[in-house]
Formats: sequence, C-alpha cells, structure tokens
Amino acid sequence: MTPSPTTLIFRGDRRVDAPGTDDRGLAYGDGLFETMRAHRGALPWWPAHWARLARGADALRLPLPAQAQVREEAARLLAGGDGVLKLVVTRGGGGRGYAPPAPATPTWILSRHPLPPPPPREGLALRWCETRLATQPALAGLKHCNRLEQVLARGEWDDPGIHEGLMRSVEGDAVCATAANLFALRDGAWRTPRLDRCGVAGVCRAWVLEAVQAREARLGADEVETAEAVFLCNAVRGILPVARLGPRAWSPHPQVAELQRRLAAAHPGFATEVS
Amino acid sequence: MTPSPTTLIFRGDRRVDAPGTDDRGLAYGDGLFETMRAHRGALPWWPAHWARLARGADALRLPLPAQAQVREEAARLLAGGDGVLKLVVTRGGGGRGYAPPAPATPTWILSRHPLPPPPPREGLALRWCETRLATQPALAGLKHCNRLEQVLARGEWDDPGIHEGLMRSVEGDAVCATAANLFALRDGAWRTPRLDRCGVAGVCRAWVLEAVQAREARLGADEVETAEAVFLCNAVRGILPVARLGPRAWSPHPQVAELQRRLAAAHPGFATEVS
Repeated sequence: MTPSPTTLIFRGDRRVDAPGTDDRGLAYGDGLFETMRAHRGALPWWPAHWARLARGADALRLPLPAQAQVREEAARLLAGGDGVLKLVVTRGGGGRGYAPPAPATPTWILSRHPLPPPPPREGLALRWCETRLATQPALAGLKHCNRLEQVLARGEWDDPGIHEGLMRSVEGDAVCATAANLFALRDGAWRTPRLDRCGVAGVCRAWVLEAVQAREARLGADEVETAEAVFLCNAVRGILPVARLGPRAWSPHPQVAELQRRLAAAHPGFATEVS
Repeated sequence: MTPSPTTLIFRGDRRVDAPGTDDRGLAYGDGLFETMRAHRGALPWWPAHWARLARGADALRLPLPAQAQVREEAARLLAGGDGVLKLVVTRGGGGRGYAPPAPATPTWILSRHPLPPPPPREGLALRWCETRLATQPALAGLKHCNRLEQVLARGEWDDPGIHEGLMRSVEGDAVCATAANLFALRDGAWRTPRLDRCGVAGVCRAWVLEAVQAREARLGADEVETAEAVFLCNAVRGILPVARLGPRAWSPHPQVAELQRRLAAAHPGFATEVS
C-alpha cells in the first residue's frame, strides 16, 4: 500500500512532483505562507488565513491559485484528521534576475504536519532575542517567506527550558516572538504591538484583538516586563500564557485562562487543550 | 543524445534530482547565493566569490559544501564555455519552525545561464525606486536569499528604456541598484555607499574600491544626482557607465572608460566588451 502523501505540490492548477530549481521561492524567498490548525479535517479559520494570504499577494503582486482548488486539495490531504496544514505560495519559476515574470504561474505546496505538543501547563519561559526586526513598511504585517531575521533569532538559544524569544524592532520596541504575537496587560487593558513597520499580523492575534478589545500601540521592552500579565498567540498553538521572561515571573492570570476558554469555544481545534 | 544539464542539485555531497519541499531555502529564504561570470570554463573571481559566501555562511551559521567539490562540479557544468554560473546554498531540509536544524546538511544548486547582452554603448538609464532598503546590520553586505525588497523595487517599472533602479535606505541615502553596486565621482574622488546597514557587498565593488581607491561613505540621493560621473558594477556585467538618472544626464567620462579597460585586463571575461 502506498502511504498517504503528506505533501502536495502544484504549479498553477497542475500537480507536479517537485518545485523547480528556478523557483523564485527558493531563489529570493519570493512567496507567502500560512500555517493553519486543522480539526477533524476542517480548517475553522480558513477565511482569515485566505484573507491574509490575499492581502500579501496584493502587496507583492503575486498571483494566487484558485481558492476552491486549494481547499479541496487541503481537505484531501487532511483526510478528516487533526494536525497542522502549511500552505506556501511562491511566484513560481523565473529566470535569473529580480524582475517578476508577468504573467507568473504560482507554485503552491500543501503539507500536513503533526500537532505540536500542548503548551506547558505552567506557562512559557521567554527570553529577549538580540536579533532585531528591521523597519520595512512595504512588508510589515505580511507572512512572506523572507524569514532570516526569525531564523537568526531562533538560532540564538538551544536551551529547551526556553520556549520562545521576544523580538524588538531596531528602535527597541517589543514586536512579537519569533513565531507568535504578543499581548500585555497594563492598567487593566490589553495591548499588542502595532505592526506597521515590522512583524506578522497573526490570524489568532486578529481574533484576540476583537475578543479582548485590545489596543494596538508601541510597546516598550520595559512595558512588557512590568505588565500585569503577558501571553503569546498563534493560529497553531492558540493562547500561550507566559510564566517567565528572563528574571521576571508571572502567576497564572484569570483573564488569560478565560481567553483560552473563549478561544476553545470559537475554534474547536483548541478545545482539547483546555482542562 | 541527452542534452547537457544546465542545473545540478546536491544535498551535502550527494547529487539529487530536486530540492526537497521542506527545503529551508524555499520556506524562509534561508540561504546564500553567488552569481559569477565564467570565461572559457573558468571563474576568474572564484576566490572572492567563495570568500563572500564563507562570510555569509559564518554570519548565518550555515554549513557550506566542500569548496573543491563545488569547483569541480562547476567546471563540469561550464564545459569550457562562457556564461553565468549561479550557486545557491541553502540550510537544507528541516521541519516546520524557524529553529535551524543542527547539524544541517546544505542543499546546493549550480546553474548555468547565458551571458547577458553587453551594456548599452551610450550608458545606462536609471530611475529612483520607491521601495526602500530596511536597516538590518545582521544581514547587511551578505548575498542572502531574502530578496523581496529587490523584487518589489524591480517590479516598479517595466519600461525597457530604463535599465536599472537605484535604491535608498529608509534613511534616504543612496545604497545600490537592484542588482548592482553604485559609484559616484565627486570632487575628483570616487565614493560608494557604506554597506553596514543594508545592501550587498559586491565582488566587483571590492575590485573597484581597490582599483580607484574609492571611499566608502554615506551618499545622499542629491549627491548622486550632482556627481561628476556615476557607474554601476556587478560581477556578471562589470562596469556599467550611467548616462541618465531621471532628468539628469551625464556624458561619457574618461575615468570610467579607463576603469573598464583595467577591469578587462584583470578579468578576461570582460575583455570582449571593451572596444
């Protein structure tokens, strides 16, 4: 019996065996991606993921495959199961040189991955990363494939006791974790960094913004450290309470636990992680 | 008869048919590249290209393949001919997530391309690009595969009468063209932008810096426009005299013509383009 595939690759609407060696994703990181939590074969946040992908495609003037075909192939790949589904869309093949080919035929790759382990019950331990996020309004907010800053930041530590690293902008403001967005409770109100200069506008972040009526603002590193509570979030792992940031420690906060329950009600994939 | 390959792909020291779909080059632009001018099967600037690649690998903590094997395969691919040889080295396969695998097995791709047409005899016509280069000292100078800024900048025009676009930093200083470095003659001395915040430290730029005893300095956009002469350079196209930048026009400058002759003497691949 042939094992079920865990990866499907397409050029335009046609299935292929491998991305081309001249793929602009490989050459320049000229692409976008989405990482989604699947629940019983469904993708509860699909509309939000596709909308962000479409905003990125618009900004990069990158053609997208047909949404219906991507959903259909995603369902086939998930085969009714739970897991993580990653979608990469690149500008496809191209000759040497930065000039985007017109028209371009996108390459898209769907891959299925196991669910990550549930977050540690006691909360995450964080560190500050030295690698800063550059100011680039033309790319800010997009989940594009130019991720060397995150790779460098995540490469700064290998202590398994540290779960994530917080990144600052070149100006010194707190922006996000390497793979999650950041929320801090101050004076009884939730704040999350503005992403008009750098950072990725997460799908779970958008849900939280609405859910807790958070305010987008510049957030100094010291304002994170002196917050009443801090959590991270992303569309694969949900709400991740933070217990430590360097020497600073936080006790579990009832508002964070409540938000986890609300997320579980809103997105069934996260229901299993709430006790 | 099987046509000679124009692309060779390796994982570590082993030839493979295609890059993996989980290649970190494709996922994150987690790699480096070099583009070299080949002359009769040789790569006259090989040591400089390899040295820059090694500097990049050091900064990204990315393993390189064995230099001797890369040179040997490059020679095989070039088969004694002229052309352009591109080498891409990525961190290789990896699971989902930014954490660099350790140890990593690099993917490397060698591809042969035709020589570009010689530069227009009357000099290049340039424009200013709107897309700015972000300040990122951790990546400045490296020829890495996160090139969305250049892709966006090169996508700003499709007028074939415009040959290249100049890019500014977010601070507004002139830095480079989308695919070439920049030199400007002011008060009888050559200057080229410092690349400690953004930009790629070109191999031809390094040769020119030495050849004309140029000074690395911040260079305002207005200082380019009011220069006595301007040229671009890269390791594939050599010295490219600039004739126009928007409304500004320059006559051919004897120092630029002299530099082209010196380059032709130093690197035989450029000899054919000097009349």
